[in-house]
Amino acid sequence: MKKILEILDKKVNFENAKAHCDVPCGIYDPISAQIAALTVVRMTDLLEEYFKGGDMSAEFMNRASRLIANKEKHAEEVKHDIRVIWGDFIKAEHTEKYPQLNSIVHSIMKLGSETKQHVNREHAVELVEKVNEFAEIFWAIKGMETVKAKAPYAPALELVYRKI
Amino acid sequence: MKKILEILDKKVNFENAKAHCDVPCGIYDPISAQIAALTVVRMTDLLEEYFKGGDMSAEFMNRASRLIANKEKHAEEVKHDIRVIWGDFIKAEHTEKYPQLNSIVHSIMKLGSETKQHVNREHAVELVEKVNEFAEIFWAIKGMETVKAKAPYAPALELVYRKI
Amino acid sequence: MKKILEILDKKVNFENAKAHCDVPCGIYDPISAQIAALTVVRMTDLLEEYFKGGDMSAEFMNRASRLIANKEKHAEEVKHDIRVIWGDFIKAEHTEKYPQLNSIVHSIMKLGSETKQHVNREHAVELVEKVNEFAEIFWAIKGMETVKAKAPYAPALELVYRKI
Amino acid sequence: MKKILEILDKKVNFENAKAHCDVPCGIYDPISAQIAALTVVRMTDLLEEYFKGGDMSAEFMNRASRLIANKEKHAEEVKHDIRVIWGDFIKAEHTEKYPQLNSIVHSIMKLGSETKQHVNREHAVELVEKVNEFAEIFWAIKGMETVKAKAPYAPALELVYRKI
Amino acid sequence: MKKILEILDKKVNFENAKAHCDVPCGIYDPISAQIAALTVVRMTDLLEEYFKGGDMSAEFMNRASRLIANKEKHAEEVKHDIRVIWGDFIKAEHTEKYPQLNSIVHSIMKLGSETKQHVNREHAVELVEKVNEFAEIFWAIKGMETVKAKAPYAPALELVYRKI
Amino acid sequence: MKKILEILDKKVNFENAKAHCDVPCGIYDPISAQIAALTVVRMTDLLEEYFKGGDMSAEFMNRASRLIANKEKHAEEVKHDIRVIWGDFIKAEHTEKYPQLNSIVHSIMKLGSETKQHVNREHAVELVEKVNEFAEIFWAIKGMETVKAKAPYAPALELVYRKI
Repeated sequence: MKKILEILDKKVNFENAKAHCDVPCGIYDPISAQIAALTVVRMTDLLEEYFKGGDMSAEFMNRASRLIANKEKHAEEVKHDIRVIWGDFIKAEHTEKYPQLNSIVHSIMKLGSETKQHVNREHAVELVEKVNEFAEIFWAIKGMETVKAKAPYAPALELVYRKI
Repeated sequence: MKKILEILDKKVNFENAKAHCDVPCGIYDPISAQIAALTVVRMTDLLEEYFKGGDMSAEFMNRASRLIANKEKHAEEVKHDIRVIWGDFIKAEHTEKYPQLNSIVHSIMKLGSETKQHVNREHAVELVEKVNEFAEIFWAIKGMETVKAKAPYAPALELVYRKI
Repeated sequence: MKKILEILDKKVNFENAKAHCDVPCGIYDPISAQIAALTVVRMTDLLEEYFKGGDMSAEFMNRASRLIANKEKHAEEVKHDIRVIWGDFIKAEHTEKYPQLNSIVHSIMKLGSETKQHVNREHAVELVEKVNEFAEIFWAIKGMETVKAKAPYAPALELVYRKI
Repeated sequence: MKKILEILDKKVNFENAKAHCDVPCGIYDPISAQIAALTVVRMTDLLEEYFKGGDMSAEFMNRASRLIANKEKHAEEVKHDIRVIWGDFIKAEHTEKYPQLNSIVHSIMKLGSETKQHVNREHAVELVEKVNEFAEIFWAIKGMETVKAKAPYAPALELVYRKI
Repeated sequence: MKKILEILDKKVNFENAKAHCDVPCGIYDPISAQIAALTVVRMTDLLEEYFKGGDMSAEFMNRASRLIANKEKHAEEVKHDIRVIWGDFIKAEHTEKYPQLNSIVHSIMKLGSETKQHVNREHAVELVEKVNEFAEIFWAIKGMETVKAKAPYAPALELVYRKI
Repeated sequence: MKKILEILDKKVNFENAKAHCDVPCGIYDPISAQIAALTVVRMTDLLEEYFKGGDMSAEFMNRASRLIANKEKHAEEVKHDIRVIWGDFIKAEHTEKYPQLNSIVHSIMKLGSETKQHVNREHAVELVEKVNEFAEIFWAIKGMETVKAKAPYAPALELVYRKI
């Protein structure tokens, strides 16, 4: 079976074989983690704005709770998605070539928790940047070019995209 | 607060205000559903290949189970993600302008179940295509251009990408 | 095997065969979605009452948070359950016979989000009513009679029940 | 606030006040657990039929896996739902009046695991019966009448329904 | 297979065979439930302290929400873990030998809900104690000695540990 | 508030203050990850034994599926728990003092995936050992002694326990 898949994979010219990727892992893409990190910034922005006019109504508490819960959820998503790519796709040869990789991942874990625990735009933006760094290395490993462009939704920060 | 956000949003020129999007929903992107649909095809391909040499070992059963579970999970993700965008972002004015939208969504739900219930490449590819159709309309509503390009991982089918 | 099941199913005279229902889906019942919608109203009522005497104690915040989280959870349940029945049980022949079906489902998705995002009794009651409409059509498709009766728990709104 | 709710509750004549039910728990209904137990029987039936013609195809494994996973999920649902009602609604006064209650609940937990661990119709049917017993006591505590009727879907066993 | 496992199990001298434990359940340990119960106390302490200086900032609400959500999660974990051991490991012979077992479990369910619904240290500590009682009986059934010792993290209450 | 907690924490003499642990993280304990890793070995053992007498019955497939799913679940638990402690508790000062820490964590992620993807006792045992290494460093950071002892349940491998 391996042979058949190798041929199949070669035909469409993708990185799988090279990355020695285990069967269930063929499709990795940091874009979901990047969008999640961006959402963390967005929730932080909305919370900061929202509390400027805060009162103790049920409506207010309802929206505040949901913004906080959404920030939490997306910060967790960032941590989870990056951990999966790091654990399943990144090999010893990659951490040798990119010696900063392990500490980028550690920073993402810490910033993910930081942005859960606080409402702090600076750290949320730093999370986006660290995930961008990770994405850049990821696509470089896959031998693909990237471009920087603003996201098409608020907070419209720059993301690292694979060049299409 | 609304005002401040409106100004903020205008500065970066994105669709939020226009779409009358509720606070927690600012960031929609069909790309996750598209990657998930692609994964359904990949799992189907792997299952079909894998069973050609099937035996009754623990190792075989282990991999077969995981491929099936992964197919299930990603088909569910497709259904969930599209339902969220359809329910939260799509307004009556959009279904009027794109009268085929509701039935595209219904097809995605049906194909999502179909690909869960069977190991059938044809239906899995159809799922990718329907999600592409949805993505095309979605970006048109947002006033953004799209391009078609092969995905950078197997099964390397064409996806509709927002032009960056 | 199909034959054996068909005979088995005929003996107990239920709709499965007629609905061309796929193997894992035999048992559909909108009652869970209806109870969940009712719970959304209940949580809304309790939140509205509760905030009349609101203070900033840990106890107050604890209960408010839980009411909000429960409202969220049940609104999601409504959306999920209806999406499943719509996607897996409802066929093209049903949407032809009941052309309002797709837009009822779309309304349920929108009201589900609406009741998540706000504390608004009017919309929560409307959610119950739309799910009732769906239940009525569902049981009509299955060829079964329904009755309207008050739920045996607050907020004791009328639900559409299958006649037993 | 409590007063307002008590009056509200009295008007619609339901058991809440009497049961001293904590705020987030107003709406209990064993019907979901009963439907889940029924689903366990259904999955068992389908598995038993299905394996009569078993082969080692991907399609076969896919359906078998999903039936098993569904059986598991619904058995867990039974255990969870009954545990919630038992823990949150049932008071010392009820276990005194119905001294068999704790051991009915213990049996449901054991049969729930039993039906997860095996493909055994006898135990699955026993699970339905035990949940029916629980439902009967539950509605008696709430002062409401029940009827026995066949479920409107396979396996069409008798369920204890609240009289509407 | 059973024989091989029995021999294997005998060699390492553990309780499995004696407890007639079903295959997927070999490893039970109440320590997770005990740590979770302790966490409920910790969250309660932190909430009580935290609200002494409460204001209406986004930062305050963010931390309060997370403490409440964490309390909820760990109280649920206590209930779930104990339910599993009770349902899967505890047999009729054990409830005969320890007639208080069912009502200890019922108390844990009730205290689990109580500590979810309120911010009340007394009940949270009682939850730890009841789970300790359960742990003590559990290890006695397994024929193992226990010791009492303070937990190595706040709130540093006494836990029942298996003697190592 | 911080002061009060610091005093409170000092009285019971635990590591929190020293570890600069953020509010929601007070209680870390690698024991859950260790038990989960042990469970991965157990499931592997049972699968290997089980398939020696494999047939194609529903009963057989049911147990095989559940063993595989349980292996998967506990391997994920190991990865998740260690990631949380690594991300939230481990600081730069710790990785400096224990320079092998990041690569131990990376190994746990890789072995976690490895044991999901295969039925391989050697790798499962290695996972237990790596988690033990992590636990040893963790308790050393907390300034506490550890002992090695056989787990009281199969597969009865040695675990690193905090000395009580």
